[in-house]
This record gives sequence, structure tokens and C-alpha cells, in this order.
Amino acid sequence: MKSADFASLPLAWLSGGSQQSDIVLSSRIRLARNLSGYPFPARCDDKKREEIAGKILERLSETPFVSVLGTWQMDGLDELRRNVLVERHLISPDFSRQTGRGKVVVVDDQGIVSLMINEEDHLRIQVFLGGLDLFECWRIAGQVDEALDVLNYAYDEEFGYLTACPTNTGTALRASVMVHIPGLEIQRKLGKIIRECNRVGLTVRGMYGEGSESVGSLFQISNQVTLGQREEELIEKVSGVITSLVQQERAARLKIWENDTSKLEDKMWRAWGIARYARSIESREAMQMLSWIRMGSQMGILPQVPPGEWNRLILDIQQAHLQCFEGRRLAEQEIDVARASLLRKRLANWNNE
Amino acid sequence: MKSADFASLPLAWLSGGSQQSDIVLSSRIRLARNLSGYPFPARCDDKKREEIAGKILERLSETPFVSVLGTWQMDGLDELRRNVLVERHLISPDFSRQTGRGKVVVVDDQGIVSLMINEEDHLRIQVFLGGLDLFECWRIAGQVDEALDVLNYAYDEEFGYLTACPTNTGTALRASVMVHIPGLEIQRKLGKIIRECNRVGLTVRGMYGEGSESVGSLFQISNQVTLGQREEELIEKVSGVITSLVQQERAARLKIWENDTSKLEDKMWRAWGIARYARSIESREAMQMLSWIRMGSQMGILPQVPPGEWNRLILDIQQAHLQCFEGRRLAEQEIDVARASLLRKRLANWNNE
Repeated sequence: MKSADFASLPLAWLSGGSQQSDIVLSSRIRLARNLSGYPFPARCDDKKREEIAGKILERLSETPFVSVLGTWQMDGLDELRRNVLVERHLISPDFSRQTGRGKVVVVDDQGIVSLMINEEDHLRIQVFLGGLDLFECWRIAGQVDEALDVLNYAYDEEFGYLTACPTNTGTALRASVMVHIPGLEIQRKLGKIIRECNRVGLTVRGMYGEGSESVGSLFQISNQVTLGQREEELIEKVSGVITSLVQQERAARLKIWENDTSKLEDKMWRAWGIARYARSIESREAMQMLSWIRMGSQMGILPQVPPGEWNRLILDIQQAHLQCFEGRRLAEQEIDVARASLLRKRLANWNNE
Repeated sequence: MKSADFASLPLAWLSGGSQQSDIVLSSRIRLARNLSGYPFPARCDDKKREEIAGKILERLSETPFVSVLGTWQMDGLDELRRNVLVERHLISPDFSRQTGRGKVVVVDDQGIVSLMINEEDHLRIQVFLGGLDLFECWRIAGQVDEALDVLNYAYDEEFGYLTACPTNTGTALRASVMVHIPGLEIQRKLGKIIRECNRVGLTVRGMYGEGSESVGSLFQISNQVTLGQREEELIEKVSGVITSLVQQERAARLKIWENDTSKLEDKMWRAWGIARYARSIESREAMQMLSWIRMGSQMGILPQVPPGEWNRLILDIQQAHLQCFEGRRLAEQEIDVARASLLRKRLANWNNE
């Protein structure tokens, strides 16, 4: 697959969702599973991992719930393509650096389901949808999970699903939601929100998960604990927190608007001006400008950039994406120039002043 | 005269000049004269000053060299109109605050000649042209000067023209040139240039003369000493320094362009983006953005904003001008909003991307 096509692999969530999608970009359910009778991937040799991958792929081809678009061995992909998969949230940064045999990513043709085989666990099932839609993600993940269950998962009556890392044991479920909360950031309420999330067992991270810094007022919120609660309870909890956060963010925007309309308008329009005209822009600044543009567009202040286009933009300006579009590796300065060029051209389409 | 018309009083230099006008905005000759037999204005009472003004205006009406557009008593103008005259460089900031009788400004209908009567001296003759054109300014100033000489100037064979402030005595001539030197500012050569100018008896000031800070890479360069040299020698010296400065600035721009084209382009286009879209902009930032725009326009990088339009813009975005266009006094925040609005609308005309 050409690198530019790789950087355009389908992702259903990009086109938006039906619920709270003004604030919530995407919902994700991730299940960790292991096959009993095999050691965890870190202690498997190449042959064992290939055997595991073979079993899973074979079973997968028989289930009607996943129509596979592509299956790639990690060590068969160049660095750019691996990084694109990370930028598209299809694999973890860790997985992108793993080169042993039998490390496989599977992507479905609807851009909803993806699998990592032999990452930390034998199997990671991931389901992504737009907006706040965790229960639907869970329903789909459950179908895939059930279809593969015949492989004989490692399961303990007391502890639940067994996983390589004990923090995942139990339901082995992670529900995460990506939110865009610039209003709360302007109001300097992030610290309070993070503390409140932690208190109820949720973590708040940047757009690219663990260790990634937050850019463009985008945050991933997910459950920390997987043990001791049923899946539905966990999902219910995350959904409830997000629903409240969405209301807080909407209120924050209104408040900021009422307090100083002209300053807010100015901030937004300047972001538009910079994104429309800069000739070189670093990732962090670009994400910040896009954050203002999304908020300004939603508040009816800026030209209407459709949410789907905005979602595509925040991926397309990432560095591996940019290099895939160009079809070659770029120097750091060239990346900033390519990023500015892409932003300029894409936003010119929505310039309805 | 309506305040908006006042803020549009003709100024010949705005439409540009024939020489070095890529770098030199305007040339100005100012002559200080006093009538013998009268004390300097500071020591005149209202009656005396009115008598002096009467004499000068009467004589002026008889000379074919000045076609008067307007004659205004300072104390008959509201603060906005007085400030507009300062912003248009037609009167000094000091004069704008003087309210005694007989303090008069005269403006010709070509926007070339203006007089201040009873500022620090009885008479200040000022001639403004576009580009580097000091000798032509001097020729015109000389005609006006000669026509008024019948009033019997205070003149000493040894010291020359006598003036209220001894630093003006002698030729009582000040030749000043307004230059736009962003390239030299980027190269951090301003300190060196100021020192070199001082060494040959020239001063370097901001756009609004003594005490004003430099904004938008605009500087006024003029002779410090008026005594001990003939007028032509003084003018020759200033012209020579400016000609060399113009060459240095052109070389600086080329050098910057060669060293980092994409960074320079980025700076310019961002300035364009901000000027095209900001909803609120302070004077200093607006001047800085316009500086990039002038340079970028001249280097063929940005849309071509004609020099005349650019010159009008740097005056029209000043706060008294903005308030005159609106026809009322504005709060500080309103001024920034009005400035952004004016910039946006005017620059939209040149958006030929």
C-alpha cells in the first residue's frame, strides 16, 4: 500500500458521531485477551508468537463481525508507516517499536475495529466510534470478543481475564474518550478536573495517551481500574463523567463569550489568520490554532469547518502523516513547511467570509 | 470641517516619491523664524501673539507660493482634531497642547506646506515630500521663506536666524527623513547606525520625533546642529547618510532572504494573516504587522499593497484618526477593535492570492 494511502486508512470516528460530538471526538473500548496455554508475548519466541498470530487470524477470517482491510506484520512496515498507525491511534507507540515476528496489526475496512496481536498481551481488541458512544463500542467489541473466545482465553473465576500487566486484569477493559475542552482550559479548570477524575478512578492524558503532553485542548479520559467492577459499570462511570464534563465545557464557552466577546473573537480570528497564511508551523502551535478554529467554528464565529474535516486535519498534520503524503522522509524544518502548506490549502476550502 | 475630513487632510508625501521611496517614506524641511521687535511667543501675551499671527497670515495671503486650504486657531480645535494634526505630522505634540490665542496652524491645499504660528518660535515653515527629496523641499521652503521675509525676521550677521531655543539658531533648519529599515533591525544593526549618525551630527528618533519610541521599523533621521554650516551643506550631509542607509537596507533584505527564505516568508505571511483577521489590535503590533507587509509587498512575497495605501494606513490606524473616522471618542478597547476593523477592510482590497 502506498504511504499516502496508508495515511488515509479508514477511521469511522473521523466523520463524527451522533452524541456530544461538539465536545467529544471519539470513544474507544479496548479489551486485552490472552490465549491460555501460551506465555505472555514478552516471553514467547518468534515461532510461538507466529503460532498465536496464525490462530487468531484464522479465527478472525471466519467471523462475520470483522471485514479485514489489511493485516500487517510490524517488522514488514517501514518506520513512517508504523508511526502513521500510532498517529491514527491504531497501535500503541510501544508496539510500533517492536520488531519480533508475529507482531501483527489488523484493521477492518470500516475503520471501527482494529487488533494488535502480540503487543503486551496476545490480543488487544480496539473499537473506535465518533462522539460519546462507549456502549455501542462495547457492543461491537463484545461481538468480536465472543467470536474469538473459542481460542480459549486465559480466564480466572476469581480474577477475571489474565493479562501481562496486573493493572489490566479483571475486565481487561479500557474505555477512553477523547474530549476537546478549550473553554475549561481557558478558565484554568483543568487541574480541578484532573483531580476529580482521579478521585473516581479515571485518568486524564494528552491526545497520544500515556506520557503524551496535552496539545490543542484535547484530552483522553479513561478508566484506571479494570478489576472489581462489571464492564457496564465501568462504561457507565466513564460516560457519566464525560456527560458532565461536556456540560461544563459548554457552560464555560458561554461564560467566556459573555465576559469578553471581542477578545475571544480576536483569539479565534487570529488563529484562523495564522493557519490560513503561515508558511511554517510547529505541531504544537498548529494544534493550538486548530483548537481555536474548532471552537470558533462551533460557536458560529469562524467559517464553518465541518467536524469531519477538522478531525482529519488533526491527524493529517502529524509528522508521519505529512511525510507519507509527501512520499518521503522530511527534515524537521521541511515538516513544519509541509504542515503549514497542508493547513493553508485545506482551510482555504472553508473560507466563506 | 467634519472630523473624518480632518483626518483626511491632503499630504503630498503619502502618494510616494520618485527617489528611494522603497525605503524612504518622506523628506521634510523645517525652518524656524521670528519677527524682530517682538518677544518670543512664550513671553508674548494673547494680544501680541494675535498681532504676529495677523501679520503672517496677511502676508501669506499675498504670496503665490502657498494656496491655503485651512487656517485653524489651536484653541478652536477639539482635542481629537489637534491630535490628528500631530499624527499627520502637521504640528508638534507640544503645540497641540497650547491653548493661548494666536496659536495658529496653516495647511496648504496640496499637502506640501504647513505653518505653525507662535509655537516655540513665531513661525515654523514645514515642507513635506515623498521619498528622498530634501533639496526640493528646501527649494519650496525657500520660496515661502522669501515671501514672508518682508516681515523683517530676527537675524544676526554672526549667529544667523535667532530662535527661542539656542539649538535652532543659525540656519534654523532641520532636514528630516523618515525611513523604513526592517532589514537592518532584523540584523540588529540599529545600535551601530544610531552611533554612526550621532557621530556625524544626526539624530535618530521614532516615527513621532523626540521622545517617541520606534515602531514598525520606522525612524526619523535629522540634523542635530543648525549652526556653522550652510543650508545646502546640512541637506547634502543628511541626504548622503540616507542614501548610504538605503543601500545598506536593500543589502540587508537580500541577505536575510538568502539566509532563511522560508522563515522570512513565514514571518511576512503571518503578519498578513493577523492584519487580515485580527478583531482587536494594539497600535504597536499593528505597526509591526504593517512593517512586515510593506517589506513583503516590496520583496514580491506578499500581495502588492501600493505604497500610497500603505502610507495612508500607518496614519489611519493612529488613535485620533480612528476616532475621527468614527466621529466620536472611543474607549481604549474600542480603539483596538476599530483599528483591527480598518486594517481588515483595507487590506482585503489587495488580497490577490
